[in-house]
Amino acid sequence: MAAPYELIYYGGVPGRGEHIRLVLEEAGSPYSDTAALPFDKSREAVTTVLEGQQGNPPYFAPPTFRHGDLIISQTSNILLYLGPKLGLAGQGENDIYRVNALALTALDGLSNEVHDCHHPIAVELYYEEQKEESHRRSKEWVKNRLPKHLGYWEKVLKSTEGPWLLGSSFTYADLVVFQCVDGVLFAFPKAMSQAKQSGKYDRVFQLWEAVKARPNIAAYLSSERRQKYDWGIYRYYPENDVVAD
Amino acid sequence: MAAPYELIYYGGVPGRGEHIRLVLEEAGSPYSDTAALPFDKSREAVTTVLEGQQGNPPYFAPPTFRHGDLIISQTSNILLYLGPKLGLAGQGENDIYRVNALALTALDGLSNEVHDCHHPIAVELYYEEQKEESHRRSKEWVKNRLPKHLGYWEKVLKSTEGPWLLGSSFTYADLVVFQCVDGVLFAFPKAMSQAKQSGKYDRVFQLWEAVKARPNIAAYLSSERRQKYDWGIYRYYPENDVVAD
Repeated sequence: MAAPYELIYYGGVPGRGEHIRLVLEEAGSPYSDTAALPFDKSREAVTTVLEGQQGNPPYFAPPTFRHGDLIISQTSNILLYLGPKLGLAGQGENDIYRVNALALTALDGLSNEVHDCHHPIAVELYYEEQKEESHRRSKEWVKNRLPKHLGYWEKVLKSTEGPWLLGSSFTYADLVVFQCVDGVLFAFPKAMSQAKQSGKYDRVFQLWEAVKARPNIAAYLSSERRQKYDWGIYRYYPENDVVAD
Repeated sequence: MAAPYELIYYGGVPGRGEHIRLVLEEAGSPYSDTAALPFDKSREAVTTVLEGQQGNPPYFAPPTFRHGDLIISQTSNILLYLGPKLGLAGQGENDIYRVNALALTALDGLSNEVHDCHHPIAVELYYEEQKEESHRRSKEWVKNRLPKHLGYWEKVLKSTEGPWLLGSSFTYADLVVFQCVDGVLFAFPKAMSQAKQSGKYDRVFQLWEAVKARPNIAAYLSSERRQKYDWGIYRYYPENDVVAD
């Protein structure tokens, strides 16, 4: 019997673990997820696995993923491991490296940068302790970075003639961009509405719609397994819900 | 004839391209590097390759790397591509995923987080325009994050019994951690001196010394190809050169 896929992540928000769930759900692949446990239990599972076991080094932060004796961390790394196994890493020679580059770029630009909008000074401090800096960063981000990132993804989709980032081949990079755009829609609805109405990023919003409509993804998104945005990467603060000047 | 390895990056600072150089130098592998061109020419090469060519999508930012028809971006991705080819990705089954996880963690924690110490609000603004926030972030980073990261790497080295992150097998993750520690030594010399004197992170500083002493690395570091820190990721601002309280 093949070893099971085990996502070890805390519950309560989609978080970075969400990218792993989406590839497994798209592929219709069975997996276990500690996020389904009571919060304390899921946190305990995360802490234990980070200590390093079975010939694997300790890791710094979740998500972590176990497959048989292998334990790995880092979102993009877990996707890289699963992508080829689930047929979601492209069909051309070396496509895995193109897909990984695109996934890393989305995670940098539309996930990490967005997280830092509410925690620009330190993750160890509460939002309320860096509210002023957060507001300043959010305004700058919406003004300069959001159009830069959306424009980049529009350019990729235009260059490969879509509908997906690699052209006709659907890959896990499409799922990553979907989840990132979905999170930014939650965190900055006014700016995203403005971006949508501008007509400059139609291919990006079409990709988001098209991923959402894929049968396995649609079923997942309407299930209880899909968690709500709250205190994680993507947060809604009315005072930061700004539009570009 | 095998296709050459081509690093396409701008000159003037080590930057993220430095991680690519270090693996190629360690392996004694020939490569070309646009950083050796006059600055305008290197910037032009970077801009051109980012547009997407030869069946490769456009990319967001350098470093980019060309090998034959393949063009890829993202530091960790280029390392992942080169690592196994250069014998620097471990010897066990699936070690590449362990090495990639470690490399990504070092790049997140000791490179991206450090960069954001001088640009916490926006990369589009000058340091002088976010000096106050930068100072606040630097103090917090030195107090909370630096010990957390150094402590993590010490734990990894302790768990695998060293001298390298994977134990006896030298991998590109060791080179990444070397370069990151080296950069932090430049940016925060007082805090790093304090960290060293504490004796809590002896394995980490030993790894830095041991990598620096490897023959190919030592030769490279004393060559003209090794560029000086200046305006890049690792910057020295006396006002931010603080120690933990």
